[in-house]
Amino acid sequence: MKKGNVIVGQSGGPTSVINSSLAGVFKAAKDNGVDKIYGMRNGIQGLLENKYVDLKECLKDGLDIELLKRTPSSYLGSCRFKLPEISENEQLFKDIFAILEKLDVKYFFYIGGNDSMDTTKKLSEYAKSINSDIRFMGVPKTIDNDLAVTDHTPGYGSAAKYIGSSIKEIIRDGLVYNYPSITVVEIMGRNAGWLTAAASLAKSDDCEGVDMICLPEVPFDVDKFLAKIEANKNRSQVVAISEGIKTKDGKYVCEASRENVATDSFGHKSLSGTSQYLAELIKEKTGCKTRSVEFSSLQRCASHIASRTDVEEAFIAGSKAVEAAINGETGKVVIFERISTEPYQMITKISDVDKIANVEKKVPLEWIVNDGTDVSDALTDYIKPLIQGEMTQIMVNGLPKHIVLK
Amino acid sequence: MKKGNVIVGQSGGPTSVINSSLAGVFKAAKDNGVDKIYGMRNGIQGLLENKYVDLKECLKDGLDIELLKRTPSSYLGSCRFKLPEISENEQLFKDIFAILEKLDVKYFFYIGGNDSMDTTKKLSEYAKSINSDIRFMGVPKTIDNDLAVTDHTPGYGSAAKYIGSSIKEIIRDGLVYNYPSITVVEIMGRNAGWLTAAASLAKSDDCEGVDMICLPEVPFDVDKFLAKIEANKNRSQVVAISEGIKTKDGKYVCEASRENVATDSFGHKSLSGTSQYLAELIKEKTGCKTRSVEFSSLQRCASHIASRTDVEEAFIAGSKAVEAAINGETGKVVIFERISTEPYQMITKISDVDKIANVEKKVPLEWIVNDGTDVSDALTDYIKPLIQGEMTQIMVNGLPKHIVLK
Repeated sequence: MKKGNVIVGQSGGPTSVINSSLAGVFKAAKDNGVDKIYGMRNGIQGLLENKYVDLKECLKDGLDIELLKRTPSSYLGSCRFKLPEISENEQLFKDIFAILEKLDVKYFFYIGGNDSMDTTKKLSEYAKSINSDIRFMGVPKTIDNDLAVTDHTPGYGSAAKYIGSSIKEIIRDGLVYNYPSITVVEIMGRNAGWLTAAASLAKSDDCEGVDMICLPEVPFDVDKFLAKIEANKNRSQVVAISEGIKTKDGKYVCEASRENVATDSFGHKSLSGTSQYLAELIKEKTGCKTRSVEFSSLQRCASHIASRTDVEEAFIAGSKAVEAAINGETGKVVIFERISTEPYQMITKISDVDKIANVEKKVPLEWIVNDGTDVSDALTDYIKPLIQGEMTQIMVNGLPKHIVLK
Repeated sequence: MKKGNVIVGQSGGPTSVINSSLAGVFKAAKDNGVDKIYGMRNGIQGLLENKYVDLKECLKDGLDIELLKRTPSSYLGSCRFKLPEISENEQLFKDIFAILEKLDVKYFFYIGGNDSMDTTKKLSEYAKSINSDIRFMGVPKTIDNDLAVTDHTPGYGSAAKYIGSSIKEIIRDGLVYNYPSITVVEIMGRNAGWLTAAASLAKSDDCEGVDMICLPEVPFDVDKFLAKIEANKNRSQVVAISEGIKTKDGKYVCEASRENVATDSFGHKSLSGTSQYLAELIKEKTGCKTRSVEFSSLQRCASHIASRTDVEEAFIAGSKAVEAAINGETGKVVIFERISTEPYQMITKISDVDKIANVEKKVPLEWIVNDGTDVSDALTDYIKPLIQGEMTQIMVNGLPKHIVLK
């Protein structure tokens, strides 16, 4: 490989396995004899402030790499920073490249979602325009699974495993009394229902499964929803809804609860989420006891129940990005292609980063069934291999051990 | 032991290990040669409707018992049913005893919290009054850890382990960006702060720990709380609050957000929780990005990260109750006595059930420090042994396997 150093950054929302991709980049770069492997602190934004670390100083041995694979969120810190168009602010690009040159960086890796792929794209285009030989590679991550081209995205499998496990537990909990109670579980995914669809995993010979699954891809009909609940109101029910469900007129359901925002006794406004809103609505309609559960950030950081398949694929994605860059690729991203579902066979490929940047992949409508209240077996079958296997946790004092950048 | 059958029931809110106590009762009864081991469905309320199962028909082998120890919530179903005073409705007691006699039950075990101990107490008193030789034993459970006399309560350790692990993960997630964000985590425990105190477990050499811990035992001062947040508003913070915190005038903080309850565009009222309310308040005060996380029912049913110590102690409690009943005890409950914390040594004893029934054990005020915003090391040291060890999960298709009564 050509001489020169590596720099790697993490960007966008955290996942349980974004650090496994970092471990993959680090390990491959080290194994390829790279001298310095830098980590940007807080992504490109930190880099612009000259904030970076020497990763060989931070990750000393194999145990550190194993801990990194088990640590949720972004070890290097993250940012939400969208690069402007080159024509809008060329100086910014000049600044970035000056820093990269100062560090003798020849390989640049950026682990993230849509926006991060946009960053990778712009940097590689700018490099081309100034005849720089620095190579830029994207490594995909997002719990939302909404990246185009790739079969799925690292981070999704672990979130889906958390959702499947927690829903099973919530169903056991919710069905315990001899009177009906309705539990509404709110799951992330503003525009794409992949995560909410993972609620379907719960259904098995030891679990009744959820009663409804509502994704943001199809309009949410409040009346039909309530009528379905009402029809079964003599038994306990658990329903899974996406935070992003919208009514026919394009309004988020949670917005409905916010039009006349409450003012409390301290004089402050109070907002409420979709599940809370629907739980109240159901209570009024049916008289049943209701509960709302929001998985909130737990679903993207519960590395203690990460999918081993996901952790390993995230690692592979990082290491394959290094391999590709060494082989001369730039402006590309590692993607996954499914060879078969059963047995599960998955290979990586390299794709143009602009096929991923700024594109959003939603759940195909043919996988949403039952008048928009369930998902097809084909969708559940698609998810299943991604949640297989567990990482043996490294427990210290009864809690999972992490590695933290000080 | 004297001839006669066993019946066992579960009552009150679910925990991760209430089934392990059931397994303990079942195994001990079976090992002692009991002919029929009945399980009440939905506790005493189900029994009154003649709903029970033959547990030997349900739990066929050792694997079923292992699955039962790993299944959250109440395998037999639960109820919230408080027995009246005998003088108020003696017929009810006659009905119960008629059913027990029909089933030739001589040993009655009830796994539950305060109210369940009250049930055990009344039934044993009634037995005495009619010279019945049926023996009644309580097996303690509650995630709240608020039972008197016993060092701690089965169910608490697993909830504490879930809280500690999840708080660690939420802290990693919450500190990821290069701008400050404030996360407010709401934890169960209406009157006792034991569960919220478990947030202190997160602090270790790989975790910054939470910034504040607010328990319901001391008045919550909204202004001081906001001032503390404000003082550190240049960095991200995670605070843990009990759902039961009250202001000086005795009002729940969540009530403050409900005085002028919102009416939404569907014409329905919307309520919000304590963490959501405080997150809004902080946002207004500091301008920081805020988030609220409610552990909701997850903290009492996340058996996938149950404490092995807790699961084993719950099992022992069940089996010790059987042993005591065989030895002639009635109107008693199994309790735990701590011999030492390090190394952890815990023994069981038998106590009068009326010492536990209807009494609530709160966190001692000397364990609440820092002007009511933190807990002492002594409290953290008290909790630590209770969260040690994990149960190897029995995973099928990537999710924890449970056993379910059909």
